[in-house]
Amino acid sequence: MKKTKHLSLKRRGLGEARVLQRIEEIAPRTEIRSSGVRLGIGDDAAVFRGTPGCEQILTCDWFLEGSHFVRDKHPADAVGWKCLARAVSDVAAMGGVPRCFLLSLALPATHEGVWLDQFLGGLRRAAKRFGCVLAGGDTTRNENILINVTVVGEARTGRAILRSGARPGDALFVSGRLGEAELGLRLIRNSKHRPDRHDAVLKKHLYPEPRLALGRWLAEKRLPSAMMDLSDGLSTDLPRLCSLSGVGARIEAGKIPMVPMPKRRRSPDNDPPEMGFDGGDDYELLFTVPRRKWQHLPRSFHGLPITAIGEITKERALLLIDDAGRTRPLKNLGWDPFRKLL
Amino acid sequence: MKKTKHLSLKRRGLGEARVLQRIEEIAPRTEIRSSGVRLGIGDDAAVFRGTPGCEQILTCDWFLEGSHFVRDKHPADAVGWKCLARAVSDVAAMGGVPRCFLLSLALPATHEGVWLDQFLGGLRRAAKRFGCVLAGGDTTRNENILINVTVVGEARTGRAILRSGARPGDALFVSGRLGEAELGLRLIRNSKHRPDRHDAVLKKHLYPEPRLALGRWLAEKRLPSAMMDLSDGLSTDLPRLCSLSGVGARIEAGKIPMVPMPKRRRSPDNDPPEMGFDGGDDYELLFTVPRRKWQHLPRSFHGLPITAIGEITKERALLLIDDAGRTRPLKNLGWDPFRKLL
Repeated sequence: MKKTKHLSLKRRGLGEARVLQRIEEIAPRTEIRSSGVRLGIGDDAAVFRGTPGCEQILTCDWFLEGSHFVRDKHPADAVGWKCLARAVSDVAAMGGVPRCFLLSLALPATHEGVWLDQFLGGLRRAAKRFGCVLAGGDTTRNENILINVTVVGEARTGRAILRSGARPGDALFVSGRLGEAELGLRLIRNSKHRPDRHDAVLKKHLYPEPRLALGRWLAEKRLPSAMMDLSDGLSTDLPRLCSLSGVGARIEAGKIPMVPMPKRRRSPDNDPPEMGFDGGDDYELLFTVPRRKWQHLPRSFHGLPITAIGEITKERALLLIDDAGRTRPLKNLGWDPFRKLL
Repeated sequence: MKKTKHLSLKRRGLGEARVLQRIEEIAPRTEIRSSGVRLGIGDDAAVFRGTPGCEQILTCDWFLEGSHFVRDKHPADAVGWKCLARAVSDVAAMGGVPRCFLLSLALPATHEGVWLDQFLGGLRRAAKRFGCVLAGGDTTRNENILINVTVVGEARTGRAILRSGARPGDALFVSGRLGEAELGLRLIRNSKHRPDRHDAVLKKHLYPEPRLALGRWLAEKRLPSAMMDLSDGLSTDLPRLCSLSGVGARIEAGKIPMVPMPKRRRSPDNDPPEMGFDGGDDYELLFTVPRRKWQHLPRSFHGLPITAIGEITKERALLLIDDAGRTRPLKNLGWDPFRKLL
């Protein structure tokens, strides 16, 4: 097994040296120095020096061909952007600041040229945008493209916002609009062509923006009692927050900020409410705020809408109130633990 | 893609809940509390509180079916042990102490029962042995078994031992014996049967022991000028240390502590010197010590041999001196960057 690997490495020649060199190039020394990373790529491990008064936030995410993206449909630079954005979103969800990341990458030999360059281009843009520098990782060869990203973030000691702090009477808020990423995914899935990566309606699916600034501001102001990011859809994620907090919730369907559906994209398959409830990959923040603090919350944050969609209840049920005032259980509550451990 | 996943999750029912529950069980709360992990599995991310006066050591490692183990030949508990041992060895190689780890696991549905239990059994034993507690991770379903482990360790600030500090005149040392893991791999590869996991000759291949105590002791005594672990074999790893230090080395072939070959295992395929030079997975420590400090180095450390095998040279070549005193270049110097980023 090991032997085979060595032999094939020898046959392959210089490909790997180039892979490593290209990866190293996306972590400029100036950025490494300011990130807390004292030692980056090249040694047995990276060395990170935490900020005094801070704790480290640790998260990792699979991003696998076939499960999370399709080789021939998703642009390589979107794969690079999104694999980091998803992991960074977990840091945003705790009100933290991303610091550095480790990239584990397994590639087929056919993808070490143009595809790798474009992938690293997207990853580099995301790293710069999120202020999160590459500190190290592991690479290997594989038939399928396999990606795993570990992000190290920081929050002031004791100030990370958990999922478990929601209390009855707290208001439930959501940032942005829901269902937009799901719409993008459906359009890509139903199209026979490779998508236009500049198409605005695909942007949220291809290049999601973790809500770092909002998460950090909320944590600094100590407004949320609980917070998480919406990665698997409101109907899947809200039960997780409620379960960990030991509470229930009542949501007003009409208040949920839904994806605006462009006329020419409408079809029987694209139902905005369904996509808003069940669609994944939004990476918006879902958070609860105690009643006495509501007044401190703006209606938008640097142009990003913040919407009250309901209330936390003592009764451990999840209820949806429709526009006619009728109450029904929130469907699709399926806890989905195989997707995400933490 | 996402939708398919949701649908199939619904069809699969309770399997995932069990997977998560079983994984959570291997991280007892008492151990979590003493590890610096302030928040473990269940939230958006884990929260780690570093030890004052320490830096964090960050490393991640692929452990993939087909590349690093074979589903039907390697016992599941050895897969669990080794995926953590390999990553922890990077921490040992810097003289650090492992603190916690993140487990990314992708499994086929067929492996969520007995295989998962045995895998977690091995992982649990390793975690306990290395003092490294599970803090979080990510799980998903996949046709192949995919594992990625991120380990967070610690070293006193500024004291982590790097690969880059070797200087001409330093002596080169290695712990333990080389080639033993390679022998185990060959025996397993050449056998038609599932190996006996209790076979002593397979132990180093199946259940490697990262040299944590030795690494830590060496760092505390500030003896090594450079250090790394031998994961890809002496002939591949020594060039990495020399390259980063900007030096060369002269090794005495006769001094390299080789695997003792049991008579009944001998075959034309099992050449001890070749396995000692080129065999991977030993996870022994390779380190250099300045001349003035040699006297402080014992010949063994708690029963683990420490052997001087050569000397660091100013001339940037890697030379092997055979028993007759003849000098020749060390073969198989192939830098193997596609295997390991850091």
